[in-house]
Amino acid sequence: MKTIFTEDHRLQDGKAELIDGKLMPCFEMPRRAEILIARVRDQKLGEVLAPEKFGADPVLRVHKPEFVRFLETAWDEWVAQHGSYDALPLNWIAPGMRRLLPETIDGKLSYFSFDAGTPITAGTWRAAIASAEVAMTGMKLVKGGERGAFSLCRPPGHHAGSDFYGGYCFFNNAAIAAQGFRDGGAARVAILDVDYHHGNGSQEIFYKRDDVMTISIHADPKQEFPFFLGHADERGEGRGEGFHLNLPLRWGAAWAEYGHALDTAMRRLTEFSPDVIVVSLGVDTFEKDPISKFKLKHEDYLRIGEAIAAAGKPTLFIMEGGYAVEELGINAVNVLQGFEAKI
Amino acid sequence: MKTIFTEDHRLQDGKAELIDGKLMPCFEMPRRAEILIARVRDQKLGEVLAPEKFGADPVLRVHKPEFVRFLETAWDEWVAQHGSYDALPLNWIAPGMRRLLPETIDGKLSYFSFDAGTPITAGTWRAAIASAEVAMTGMKLVKGGERGAFSLCRPPGHHAGSDFYGGYCFFNNAAIAAQGFRDGGAARVAILDVDYHHGNGSQEIFYKRDDVMTISIHADPKQEFPFFLGHADERGEGRGEGFHLNLPLRWGAAWAEYGHALDTAMRRLTEFSPDVIVVSLGVDTFEKDPISKFKLKHEDYLRIGEAIAAAGKPTLFIMEGGYAVEELGINAVNVLQGFEAKI
Ligand SMILES: [Zn+2]
Ligand SMILES: [Zn+2]
Repeated sequence: MKTIFTEDHRLQDGKAELIDGKLMPCFEMPRRAEILIARVRDQKLGEVLAPEKFGADPVLRVHKPEFVRFLETAWDEWVAQHGSYDALPLNWIAPGMRRLLPETIDGKLSYFSFDAGTPITAGTWRAAIASAEVAMTGMKLVKGGERGAFSLCRPPGHHAGSDFYGGYCFFNNAAIAAQGFRDGGAARVAILDVDYHHGNGSQEIFYKRDDVMTISIHADPKQEFPFFLGHADERGEGRGEGFHLNLPLRWGAAWAEYGHALDTAMRRLTEFSPDVIVVSLGVDTFEKDPISKFKLKHEDYLRIGEAIAAAGKPTLFIMEGGYAVEELGINAVNVLQGFEAKI
Repeated sequence: MKTIFTEDHRLQDGKAELIDGKLMPCFEMPRRAEILIARVRDQKLGEVLAPEKFGADPVLRVHKPEFVRFLETAWDEWVAQHGSYDALPLNWIAPGMRRLLPETIDGKLSYFSFDAGTPITAGTWRAAIASAEVAMTGMKLVKGGERGAFSLCRPPGHHAGSDFYGGYCFFNNAAIAAQGFRDGGAARVAILDVDYHHGNGSQEIFYKRDDVMTISIHADPKQEFPFFLGHADERGEGRGEGFHLNLPLRWGAAWAEYGHALDTAMRRLTEFSPDVIVVSLGVDTFEKDPISKFKLKHEDYLRIGEAIAAAGKPTLFIMEGGYAVEELGINAVNVLQGFEAKI
């Protein structure tokens, strides 16, 4: 399997995120991608390619123009107001408040964000565009006939919605690739999200559509970030009704529960009969992940790859979360090797 | 004029707030109240009384029970999960998300808060209840015939809504006092909010009511916290329509603009003919305030007090914001002395 990767991911290198009541060094760090690419090379998974240039056009297919413009200029506006350190927002919209776009940079950060864990830095815009290009290059490879490809995206994307960022995510790489497949002629695309956290951005973007199915297996939002989306009763809206599936699991879930949910997910996915599958590949379901509470083990990731392969569809893997940094490579590449073993 | 004050305010002593992208020492600190009470005593404003006990009952007249319960137990739940340091929330509700109450403490903090600048500490509950009692004791004094009284509340209250906290505020002391006046027989109560920031909590609580008018003069939410409420076109809803007035001013406003807005405010207030006035007394409009951008000078605060006195109504002053700590006492007491000079 080919991997798409660029060093430009290093341009996103936040100092700190607000988590557990403290500003802590960012869990979402450049070393994550370094460990992943090292494992890809070490295991001789296949060729490693640089992304092609796509610019912002594919991003604008799923994100609103004012949001994309905001991310392009946010750093300069922040520096002009505050100086050259990471930008974090100040507040958010309480019940009864109105979502009107403010004029000042602090107001704009508040408007477009949903957490204080996702710093905007000098390199955020370029890193986020490069990450989307990594996804789009993978899309092109799979569209061109590859059975599978691995877009080693960083920063991740699945929490980013049509006009908001958060959860370490700026642009929704999986959604951009899925829309890219649609624009390239695929009739139906399924996004399968196996990250520990609900893929709220992907769901939000496609919730009223029946051409891109979203399926997410994740920690119950009653217990876990992002808290306010990803419940089992969310099934889509309008034309999208019935084309979106959430399989929340409780804290402590191990392979017994996870494998069962994955079976359910793959059954629904197969029934949908997509032309292509986009996998939001998070491995923060790992038992040693520092911010998560599932109990998957190294070998369980082989099983995930095998189950996805069994659907028999062209498949693009998009890297999402996973914060047990030193073991990230083993788990992510296990999914890809499990997949390759069964195609 | 009598002042109501308690040392219990010290129980709210947060270490840090997220502001300007950094965790900084809390601007809303115990020293604020110490400076205020010292000035009250130094100027021989009048007797200083301890608050009576009211408990949570008056709080429950304007805040939802689940919110009040949350604040009572939040610290213990936080300590059980994270240990004994200040509690800050993790994320908020993005567009399309659902406001469902999570089970875990991080989720509850996210549900009930609207910023990351308002730490919950070991003493928050007791300090917030004590602050509401300071407001209620002032209410009782004014109801009992005092022409004016000063409730030296801390923590402040005007950003807290029916079921959310933020902006250094937990319970809305001004709203609690206003409701107390209503429950005590007043037909109409006017809340005049002269804090630099919009009194979003007070507006939210009374927005559909015509018996409690809210009038707020504040920095334009297009430029300033809380960003998403306080625009000039918000006039109330249902029965409340026309009973709520916002007078936003641009950054840099000095007495010329402020005095004009205050005239407009007092005209509308007088037309309403309230039985009593509750003043949300913030002095972060001061030219040297570290987090604000208005340009009022010491003597302008005398003018504010005089204008309020001219309405000729029993008046309860409730302390809100003001962060130029060393000069806070001068400005707040100037309002009270301006008021006393004209009654
Ligand atoms: Zn995740
Ligand atoms: Zn204020």
